[in-house]
Amino acid sequence: MDFLFDFLTSIFVQFQSPTLGFLIGGMVIAALGSNLKIPNSIYQFIVFMLLMKIGIKGGIEIRGADLSAMFLPAVSTVIIGITIVLIGSFVFSLLPGIKREDGIATAGIFGAVSASTLAAAMVLLEEEAIFYEAWVPALYPFMDIPALILAIVLANIHLKKQNEGKDSKVDVWGIVKESLRGSALSALILGLSLGLLTNSESVLESFYEPLFRGFLSVLLLVMGMEAYARLNELRRVAYLYAVYAFIAPIMHGLMAFGIGYIAHVTVDFSPGGVILLSVMAASSSDISGPPTLRGAIPSANPSAYIGSSTSVGTPIAIAVCIPLFIALAKVVFDL
Amino acid sequence: MDFLFDFLTSIFVQFQSPTLGFLIGGMVIAALGSNLKIPNSIYQFIVFMLLMKIGIKGGIEIRGADLSAMFLPAVSTVIIGITIVLIGSFVFSLLPGIKREDGIATAGIFGAVSASTLAAAMVLLEEEAIFYEAWVPALYPFMDIPALILAIVLANIHLKKQNEGKDSKVDVWGIVKESLRGSALSALILGLSLGLLTNSESVLESFYEPLFRGFLSVLLLVMGMEAYARLNELRRVAYLYAVYAFIAPIMHGLMAFGIGYIAHVTVDFSPGGVILLSVMAASSSDISGPPTLRGAIPSANPSAYIGSSTSVGTPIAIAVCIPLFIALAKVVFDL
Amino acid sequence: MDFLFDFLTSIFVQFQSPTLGFLIGGMVIAALGSNLKIPNSIYQFIVFMLLMKIGIKGGIEIRGADLSAMFLPAVSTVIIGITIVLIGSFVFSLLPGIKREDGIATAGIFGAVSASTLAAAMVLLEEEAIFYEAWVPALYPFMDIPALILAIVLANIHLKKQNEGKDSKVDVWGIVKESLRGSALSALILGLSLGLLTNSESVLESFYEPLFRGFLSVLLLVMGMEAYARLNELRRVAYLYAVYAFIAPIMHGLMAFGIGYIAHVTVDFSPGGVILLSVMAASSSDISGPPTLRGAIPSANPSAYIGSSTSVGTPIAIAVCIPLFIALAKVVFDL
Repeated sequence: MDFLFDFLTSIFVQFQSPTLGFLIGGMVIAALGSNLKIPNSIYQFIVFMLLMKIGIKGGIEIRGADLSAMFLPAVSTVIIGITIVLIGSFVFSLLPGIKREDGIATAGIFGAVSASTLAAAMVLLEEEAIFYEAWVPALYPFMDIPALILAIVLANIHLKKQNEGKDSKVDVWGIVKESLRGSALSALILGLSLGLLTNSESVLESFYEPLFRGFLSVLLLVMGMEAYARLNELRRVAYLYAVYAFIAPIMHGLMAFGIGYIAHVTVDFSPGGVILLSVMAASSSDISGPPTLRGAIPSANPSAYIGSSTSVGTPIAIAVCIPLFIALAKVVFDL
Repeated sequence: MDFLFDFLTSIFVQFQSPTLGFLIGGMVIAALGSNLKIPNSIYQFIVFMLLMKIGIKGGIEIRGADLSAMFLPAVSTVIIGITIVLIGSFVFSLLPGIKREDGIATAGIFGAVSASTLAAAMVLLEEEAIFYEAWVPALYPFMDIPALILAIVLANIHLKKQNEGKDSKVDVWGIVKESLRGSALSALILGLSLGLLTNSESVLESFYEPLFRGFLSVLLLVMGMEAYARLNELRRVAYLYAVYAFIAPIMHGLMAFGIGYIAHVTVDFSPGGVILLSVMAASSSDISGPPTLRGAIPSANPSAYIGSSTSVGTPIAIAVCIPLFIALAKVVFDL
Repeated sequence: MDFLFDFLTSIFVQFQSPTLGFLIGGMVIAALGSNLKIPNSIYQFIVFMLLMKIGIKGGIEIRGADLSAMFLPAVSTVIIGITIVLIGSFVFSLLPGIKREDGIATAGIFGAVSASTLAAAMVLLEEEAIFYEAWVPALYPFMDIPALILAIVLANIHLKKQNEGKDSKVDVWGIVKESLRGSALSALILGLSLGLLTNSESVLESFYEPLFRGFLSVLLLVMGMEAYARLNELRRVAYLYAVYAFIAPIMHGLMAFGIGYIAHVTVDFSPGGVILLSVMAASSSDISGPPTLRGAIPSANPSAYIGSSTSVGTPIAIAVCIPLFIALAKVVFDL
């Protein structure tokens, strides 16, 4: 009962969050036939701004981190992100009536990480006085960015195959290069490099960071308008996305818990770190994912991936996964 | 003498305000033949941003207000806003040489409310220790938004009639729907709904609010350039706008004072509340009005409505109406 | 040895500065064939925003300054700025293989002032307790803005001559008017007038100032992409720019030191003021210059003028000129 109440509260809070509010607002005004338009040049610039911010922030966090201590956990984190996208894309490819790009993009968004879900878990650990290494939160770009890049490359391989016939040989390395040169990943990697190599804290804090939430609200408005127009593409398969979004966070988190446990045994990774790693894997991105995927896989339906992540995946990650992994850690590590 | 001095000081301060400075700056560089251009896509986005901010802020204020206590005053406020626009539009329709849209837009801007004039009155009331209910300032969107919507609908009805011949039947409800679907009112109402229904304080405070004054400065620059180009349309009728802008604030304020007095007698509305209601009615919008009207009635001449409001209406409201209504209240309510 | 170490440190710090980071980032992603684009309308608006900020800020500083006390130093400052541009343009016109616009733009950027170099000198003077008049820093727009205007006019005269044949009579006053009407100088002068005549502090502080560094970063990214595309235009003459950028700051600073010394003798200009004036002359603009020149002389190659200023001129000004002029002042004024 308590669980159900927490879950419904979490959904209710999500619906009052301005993030989702702008998305739904966009859908509603599209449904009412509004003539509101965000000019395309503005939209392109907003996507650029969002991706630069995500990149710069990730770069600064990696720069500030103790890379020698976190090397093995970072490698594990990359592997978890990639595995989630590969499994998800494969699962969706088996389901009937799912468009390939939509499935790959949804798998990508579940491979990426929600910073706010992670923050919620950190608060809980501190309340319960469960220790974790200070660099653990800096692991998140190691899961987030490889997952999104992989999803984009997979989608581009699929689209290439579709265009040229199934049996044609696909130049995977060419597609990887092409994907990295696309405007979305270019901006993300440029930001990452600037964050890593320059003292970009001041420009991040004075410009990219404060404008982020606001530009994201405009992006979600645009994506809401588009999502409405493409909503009935999903009519027959929406329940499949809901089932995936319900099960996937728990599965991904358990897999990460196992890998974290191995790191605990081998390099003495803390129990708190294992919990946070599991929460990262369980969470799905509602910030970095949408602009990246929208910019890089325009043919994928945002109703599919944002809908799955924001309306089912995130409440499950917060209300089910966080308490579940803390409880599991208490048993396994005898806290 | 004191009054004249206050009035001229108020005009002088207005002219040094950056708001008017940008408007006049736009006119001057247009007069000097500058090639400066603000790209149209930027302009559209700026209007969107301004209207979202006005809407979200209004929505949050209504959400925070005690609607049961303020119900009757709120209804009165809506009625005052609508009456001002209807009377103004009618008066202008009788005057010779005034283009209908220009008259309707000017009536709309005098129906809308100036938040800074209202704030000036609140400061004075506090200095004189005159009590008013805390929710009174939250009445302003109830006057502002209906007045602007009504002006836009009236202008669209006029334009439709003009296009299709005077005798054609006009589908008023169709025009109302069309007006609400236009990009300006869509953004305003979307913002209002988001402010009412979601926790949009953080995105308002971190994005829409801090960018507001600046984007408004750019908008006024653009409107100044346009106003210059259309200034001589008004050459023969400018004195009519000046006379209206001189008389209207006093008349509107007195009307609101009478309605407020009735609310005082019937539901014990405070004397301070009556004064603030009168000041709202007397004030004309220099913030919410220009972007809304410019977005929704593009054929109306901004030299007419902004000129009337900013250069005559607002100084009269501040220097004449506020002291007048405070003095009147002292007599009527025996403060 | 110490000097070389300081110089290399200064270069290294420059390279880590986000300003240069974004420029180099733009060059790198252009070299890698990225498809990232900043829409042109955004670019135009960014240039407008940057120039408005520079203008408003300059205007406010001039308004706040004690013009009677600073009259003679201000006139000297204008003369120094103009002389630097005239000498620089002449020198480059003598060098083989240098495109005229590139030389003029580079001379313009060395006539303009770097606010951060000036600030570094002010910090050092305060540490060494060397007095200067409070209005000295407000001299900088008197050097910055005339230098940029002159460079733009010279470039436009050259381009006109080139188009119409060398012997044709050139209408200089017509070109000056045309240059002032161009979008870049219009915005700069509009900002200057608004800063001088209106209370524009609040809109500067709430909008133009906080967005400045960020928009500058985007501008430098765009200029980096463009610079890469035009880099090999400079292959044969890059060493000439490097030599100019190495020598010019020292020469300009010594000239200003001499003029400042005359002001010291005649109107008792302080030794600290003489040092700051020399540093202004020695510094080259990395903030106001690039957007102004890029907007007003689009055919000039940004690799030439930004490269000279940012990678050689600024380190020389900071690491060589500031200590040099302080030492010189100690000897000359017996501090």
